[in-house]
Amino acid sequence: MCELLGMSSNTPADICFSFSGLMQRGGKTGPHKDGWGIAFYEGRGCRTFHDPFPSADSEIAKLVKNYPIKSRNVICHIRKANSGKVCLENTHPFVRELWGRNWCYAHNGQLRGIKKKLKLAHFEPVGTTDSEYAFCWLLDQIYSKYPKPPKQDGKIALLIKELCHSLSQFGVFNILMCDSKYLYAHCSTKLAWVTRKAPFGKAKLVDEDLSIDFCHRMSPDDVITVLATEPLTANETWQRAQKGDFLVFKDGLQLSIK
Amino acid sequence: MCELLGMSSNTPADICFSFSGLMQRGGKTGPHKDGWGIAFYEGRGCRTFHDPFPSADSEIAKLVKNYPIKSRNVICHIRKANSGKVCLENTHPFVRELWGRNWCYAHNGQLRGIKKKLKLAHFEPVGTTDSEYAFCWLLDQIYSKYPKPPKQDGKIALLIKELCHSLSQFGVFNILMCDSKYLYAHCSTKLAWVTRKAPFGKAKLVDEDLSIDFCHRMSPDDVITVLATEPLTANETWQRAQKGDFLVFKDGLQLSIK
Repeated sequence: MCELLGMSSNTPADICFSFSGLMQRGGKTGPHKDGWGIAFYEGRGCRTFHDPFPSADSEIAKLVKNYPIKSRNVICHIRKANSGKVCLENTHPFVRELWGRNWCYAHNGQLRGIKKKLKLAHFEPVGTTDSEYAFCWLLDQIYSKYPKPPKQDGKIALLIKELCHSLSQFGVFNILMCDSKYLYAHCSTKLAWVTRKAPFGKAKLVDEDLSIDFCHRMSPDDVITVLATEPLTANETWQRAQKGDFLVFKDGLQLSIK
Repeated sequence: MCELLGMSSNTPADICFSFSGLMQRGGKTGPHKDGWGIAFYEGRGCRTFHDPFPSADSEIAKLVKNYPIKSRNVICHIRKANSGKVCLENTHPFVRELWGRNWCYAHNGQLRGIKKKLKLAHFEPVGTTDSEYAFCWLLDQIYSKYPKPPKQDGKIALLIKELCHSLSQFGVFNILMCDSKYLYAHCSTKLAWVTRKAPFGKAKLVDEDLSIDFCHRMSPDDVITVLATEPLTANETWQRAQKGDFLVFKDGLQLSIK
């Protein structure tokens, strides 16, 4: 299956350390050799890098690993293709504009029969994956209920939660999604997260012989949550989401949804 | 003013040589220090790189310059900001999905009063530039006339031609736009192009001491058109578009529009 990586932070931060670990799984320590992609939000802007080649050998992955792009919301995906051929248009994360905001989404899992059962209206997939199809359906549903954004952000989160539950009836639906302000996550099978805040300690990657001492890199007020399909570090306490969990993060902190 | 660069080719080709010349204008030989961006089509997929920093010093520009991404349609833009602050969301080219196709667009010029006079429906700008606003309006008009793509591609080209003429009433509207199959260009003031085909010769950049002998790099059947605000090479015959010209390229060749 594919691997997801996400970050929510209260201050622009780089994701080089976590990305470094994840990229090893793209053809080296993991079987996810069918491309990878990453999206960095910077304000309302969203910068993406996509590569249909294995991340472990990718020139673009080397750039992202060594060039500390600072962002408050990041979504990354490495792919083990199971629906749709290996090509650029099938490489996550997918991005669409709704309400003048960049929406970005990456999916891990398979959704059987979704193309026959769910109809699309305004948003159409460019590629052939069930993942992008589900993303277009999600945005269609949001747009059809709210042609303009509702005043209370909580209404959007509640709607997305319901839509994720509907989509998970079709199969495995582990996702990360961001509208430039909130990072949404849904867990069908696997998703873990760790929130780093003061006092900061050391962390050691599972997939590479690399450690980092966050106390030298973070300010006392920094709060960062990293989400991943499987924990990326060996010596931190990751929380594991349960089947059906829908999570929302903003500024590095988990919010409660009512 | 900003600088545009585009490519249409009948076979996947890299744009490293032309890009190398253009990037010098981003803060070195030119005043376009307010960011740059490039979009490469690969099949239906579209890979973009955006950087709000000057291209002459950009780490990402170095990657693009040295890493030969092969593409049949490319749009590149370096920015001299005159509307909207310097930030990622105001960095061209802009991308939107319509009819399951990636549409990409970059603009050089200023459009006065457009936000007051033209109303938007489905597509909304993420940033604050008049350029992105005009792109959203263009797509709105196409989508409202053709909710599904017309069977004859020529109808789309004719509609875009009309829309470009309408937009050029607001000011300078030099653009490059691509729907993954056709490269469209409109000229208000400056736009030049050169078509390279066999027999291939040498070309020397205007902005950098760099030459290339295309006969060692191209196959006899290759046809490539490069478009730019100002000619990029010193020893080739570039054609200059006239005010109001609307051009369409496919597979490296200019098509006639009726």
